[in-house]
Amino acid sequence: MSVTAARGFRAFGLHSGIKSADVLDTAVVVADRPVPAAAVFTTSETAAPVVALARKHMADPHVQALVVNSGCANAGTGARGLIVAQRLAAAAAGIVGCSADQVIVASTGPIGTELPVDRVITQLAGAFSAADSTPAGGTRAARGIMTTDSVPKEAVVNGNGYTIGGMSKGAGMVRPDMATMLAYLTTDARVDPSVLQTVLTDAVDLTFNSLNIDGCQSTNDMVILLASGESGVAPDLVSFAADLTLLCGDLARKMAEDAEGASRVVTLHISGADDDRTARRIGKAVADSALVRASFHGADPNWGRVLGALGVTGLPISHQDIEISYAGTIVAQQGVGIDFDEPDVIGELEKGDFELGIVVGTGSGTATIVTTDLTPEYVVFNSERS
Amino acid sequence: MSVTAARGFRAFGLHSGIKSADVLDTAVVVADRPVPAAAVFTTSETAAPVVALARKHMADPHVQALVVNSGCANAGTGARGLIVAQRLAAAAAGIVGCSADQVIVASTGPIGTELPVDRVITQLAGAFSAADSTPAGGTRAARGIMTTDSVPKEAVVNGNGYTIGGMSKGAGMVRPDMATMLAYLTTDARVDPSVLQTVLTDAVDLTFNSLNIDGCQSTNDMVILLASGESGVAPDLVSFAADLTLLCGDLARKMAEDAEGASRVVTLHISGADDDRTARRIGKAVADSALVRASFHGADPNWGRVLGALGVTGLPISHQDIEISYAGTIVAQQGVGIDFDEPDVIGELEKGDFELGIVVGTGSGTATIVTTDLTPEYVVFNSERS
Repeated sequence: MSVTAARGFRAFGLHSGIKSADVLDTAVVVADRPVPAAAVFTTSETAAPVVALARKHMADPHVQALVVNSGCANAGTGARGLIVAQRLAAAAAGIVGCSADQVIVASTGPIGTELPVDRVITQLAGAFSAADSTPAGGTRAARGIMTTDSVPKEAVVNGNGYTIGGMSKGAGMVRPDMATMLAYLTTDARVDPSVLQTVLTDAVDLTFNSLNIDGCQSTNDMVILLASGESGVAPDLVSFAADLTLLCGDLARKMAEDAEGASRVVTLHISGADDDRTARRIGKAVADSALVRASFHGADPNWGRVLGALGVTGLPISHQDIEISYAGTIVAQQGVGIDFDEPDVIGELEKGDFELGIVVGTGSGTATIVTTDLTPEYVVFNSERS
Repeated sequence: MSVTAARGFRAFGLHSGIKSADVLDTAVVVADRPVPAAAVFTTSETAAPVVALARKHMADPHVQALVVNSGCANAGTGARGLIVAQRLAAAAAGIVGCSADQVIVASTGPIGTELPVDRVITQLAGAFSAADSTPAGGTRAARGIMTTDSVPKEAVVNGNGYTIGGMSKGAGMVRPDMATMLAYLTTDARVDPSVLQTVLTDAVDLTFNSLNIDGCQSTNDMVILLASGESGVAPDLVSFAADLTLLCGDLARKMAEDAEGASRVVTLHISGADDDRTARRIGKAVADSALVRASFHGADPNWGRVLGALGVTGLPISHQDIEISYAGTIVAQQGVGIDFDEPDVIGELEKGDFELGIVVGTGSGTATIVTTDLTPEYVVFNSERS
């Protein structure tokens, strides 16, 4: 299903010749006309040229077509990379019949290699004419943006009279530098661009931005939401925000579960922080700790490492209020270890995914951060030369 | 040699019964009288009670005795832990004949376990009377503070008419949460406490604080410098600062080389930053990246990962001025990859330790950060339950 679940969108995935063999390496998504759009981009200072171009194109937030390739990030390519992205946007605009700034181009894959842009352009007309609104078209598109993903990632949420669907790829794969986090979402709800942007930003913060697989943000991260309005329904915005957050959360969870170097998903619940923003930053700092994540791998309720990580976030915590619980069992309170049934807790953790509760003070700020364990396999894969 | 190289200090290492078997687990160092002292402590918000007590004792920067135990960090122990540290200081003061606030107590080992303080106190009188100024005494003390270190770490620098010596332990061992970074330095130079503090702070910044094994700062980190003045020499301060930095650098390097989960030491040279402080923070952020450090393990000149890590430090860099070189060979310039002899560079990196040069702009700020590779062994060791 993915991007073709909502009315008004067609999609296709193809092999353009970027990757060797007959593997899909390109996806196109097209609306019937330029439609309201919202976007969230990587905050990297070394963002790829495609990101700079997409930001520029979003100055007027209406988009008709997406062209996304895998197998090459077109990053670390400077002025040449920008020209490549511009050529792709212009070619797609010519085929679809919109202006170039109504096309968003995105790339994912290794940094520092050149995109064989002529090969991709040659295939574009055929790709757009093959695009359809069937579930198969959506799934083909989801396959076209995969790099080291083992499965395509698709999700659909049915709202009150409207549908939101989407596809995503990446985050914490065996080679995360080839694993930009990309997500393309479509809805047939009728929503103004400015409202669309607010709702998307919030949903991304709570879901994709609360994923912390290995603390490594990419040069190419991008989330795009297009709203065709084809359902004719102007949704209640609170419900729409909830539905969109649900959809993004579903995709984010699928990304964590597919993190190939990982053996379990660990969900950190931070509470007691000064505010939600601080809670999220504390949670991400804990999830950045190699020592903490290695202890997750060992199903080890090693709260001392969590305490150590909390101490050096540089963010406000209250040592004497710290409470830490693994899988529902409190193991430290008031910053000090307490007696607990360690074999029982280890048994719980060994079952697979688990939850870690961390109270950092007496404030009302909370956050949920989804991460994975750090495994020897992650290091083995990531130390291989490509 | 270590802490007994300079005149006016005696030392001993013993088995107090904290660790099982007959392994040394405690060190004592004593001067003939309270002498000028300087200290640098962990900035952790969850610092151990011993750190709080040592800070308090440094209010008047004169110290006669050090008592350091391994095998137990006495951290995450709250009010009980503070009482334990106070009892140790009082016992040592009674034996040595100084006031309790002229004793610094330190602990390293697992977090959250109780120190068997009565056992240690029982042995203290014998330990101080066995302390002597021989090289063997210094080496025994260096052994007494080891946790997962495979060798004791000692260093000596002979200045112009004075000597500085020291011992250290920790940083990036198989279990870094047991591997607090501790260093005890002694000199027979005659230096005022306030000057001693300035010189020590600078030397620690350039050496121990520029070590980044796994980004994990401990609850118990501590560096102490004592100056007996027994040489009678009041040194030129520029020379003294240089000698002290040399000594600390020697100890820091020994710690990196002994990082058991690591197979090579990588030295990052950052330049072109707005100032030295910014350069250091950028270098540490790059050394915090699991992806970058995994590529070090693979002897992979993967400059794309370095570019990615540079982009998300949140610190000022100039993308178009970025230049990256591995083992002296430039692989990226103006933020863009350039042609280079990849097999040749890989061959250089595979030899062992190597240097990574990173230009981040056109400023005058520079820093050198010493780190190690991330290896599967690191994760295996750190995911084992203790």
